[in-house]
Amino acid sequence: MEFQDVIRKRKMVRSFEDRPVDHAIVERMLANAQRAPSAGFSQGWGFLVLEGKTQAQRYWDATWPTERRRDFGWPDMFNAPVIIVCLSNKDQYLTRYAMPDKGWTDRDEKRWPVPYWDIDTGMAALNILLTAVDAGLGAVFFGVFDQAKLRAAFGIPEDYTAVGTIAVGHPKPKDRPSPSLKNVGRRNAASVVHHGRW
Amino acid sequence: MEFQDVIRKRKMVRSFEDRPVDHAIVERMLANAQRAPSAGFSQGWGFLVLEGKTQAQRYWDATWPTERRRDFGWPDMFNAPVIIVCLSNKDQYLTRYAMPDKGWTDRDEKRWPVPYWDIDTGMAALNILLTAVDAGLGAVFFGVFDQAKLRAAFGIPEDYTAVGTIAVGHPKPKDRPSPSLKNVGRRNAASVVHHGRW
Repeated sequence: MEFQDVIRKRKMVRSFEDRPVDHAIVERMLANAQRAPSAGFSQGWGFLVLEGKTQAQRYWDATWPTERRRDFGWPDMFNAPVIIVCLSNKDQYLTRYAMPDKGWTDRDEKRWPVPYWDIDTGMAALNILLTAVDAGLGAVFFGVFDQAKLRAAFGIPEDYTAVGTIAVGHPKPKDRPSPSLKNVGRRNAASVVHHGRW
Repeated sequence: MEFQDVIRKRKMVRSFEDRPVDHAIVERMLANAQRAPSAGFSQGWGFLVLEGKTQAQRYWDATWPTERRRDFGWPDMFNAPVIIVCLSNKDQYLTRYAMPDKGWTDRDEKRWPVPYWDIDTGMAALNILLTAVDAGLGAVFFGVFDQAKLRAAFGIPEDYTAVGTIAVGHPKPKDRPSPSLKNVGRRNAASVVHHGRW
């Protein structure tokens, strides 16, 4: 698909058909995630991939209590046959920047103006979302509020933090858009973009 | 350009020709930035755009001391005719999630597992980088280590933090790649991607 069409069509999709996704597309999503940029080429990220209904079900069982699932407004989200959890690893950035060619001789976190471990992992997640659109699929990205439960369920080491989880599948023809789009509305470009100075 | 070609060709470019970039491409980069996803559609981001040599020069003068510029290994980076500073605004996220439809009645930062203000702004930055590739241009993304100087020089309010600056231009035929690519190397996919469990 043309790049600009992918950008234009990308949106969060929360209703999936109950059928699998071609494994080759999953591989492409993961390869593209690893082509995201990263500070000092640290690549301090990790991806937990759950493929097929049985594996995907384990994600919901581990992290979404029954009540939350019952009350969720998009029941067909749980049909998603692919789940990719995108995780960041701060330690790998601190280690990278203590290497001789970077020359930060300590691992002081205060040197970092913003957490590039989370930002770079977010960029990798965006590459996955865009790749899903390019493949004619739908995807949604959401936060993980109980990191400990996730780590325990899937044996994830303590030094990884989930930046967000992506559910991917074939989109149902009708999907209720997020109420946020209407409740908030798009910010006026004039308040967002500043030319020459603020 | 085909989406997959854009992903494949994206890399940091630090050597630019001394000629302007079409204003329509700058507009497209900014429009695509604002199509990035954001938590609760908060869109807590801002973009400072410096177009043309005179404006771009003000960026380097304000934030890169003469010695740093002199010692920098890619002198043609300073030819970039377009600079876009990507900034995040945490307050706009805290305010968004205190709205009735989100129902977090306080603005407690501890509720957030990761800083989506920085992550979403990073995704917007990636859309800019990819759009540059799609337009046949080159771009580089780098961190801002003196936020106070940047704010002072361009009248940026205190509640905005620069996640990174993008310099864009027509790439020179030869550009020295970042030494990080060789010094670190690509991480083995088997240590990054985990199927079923970690």
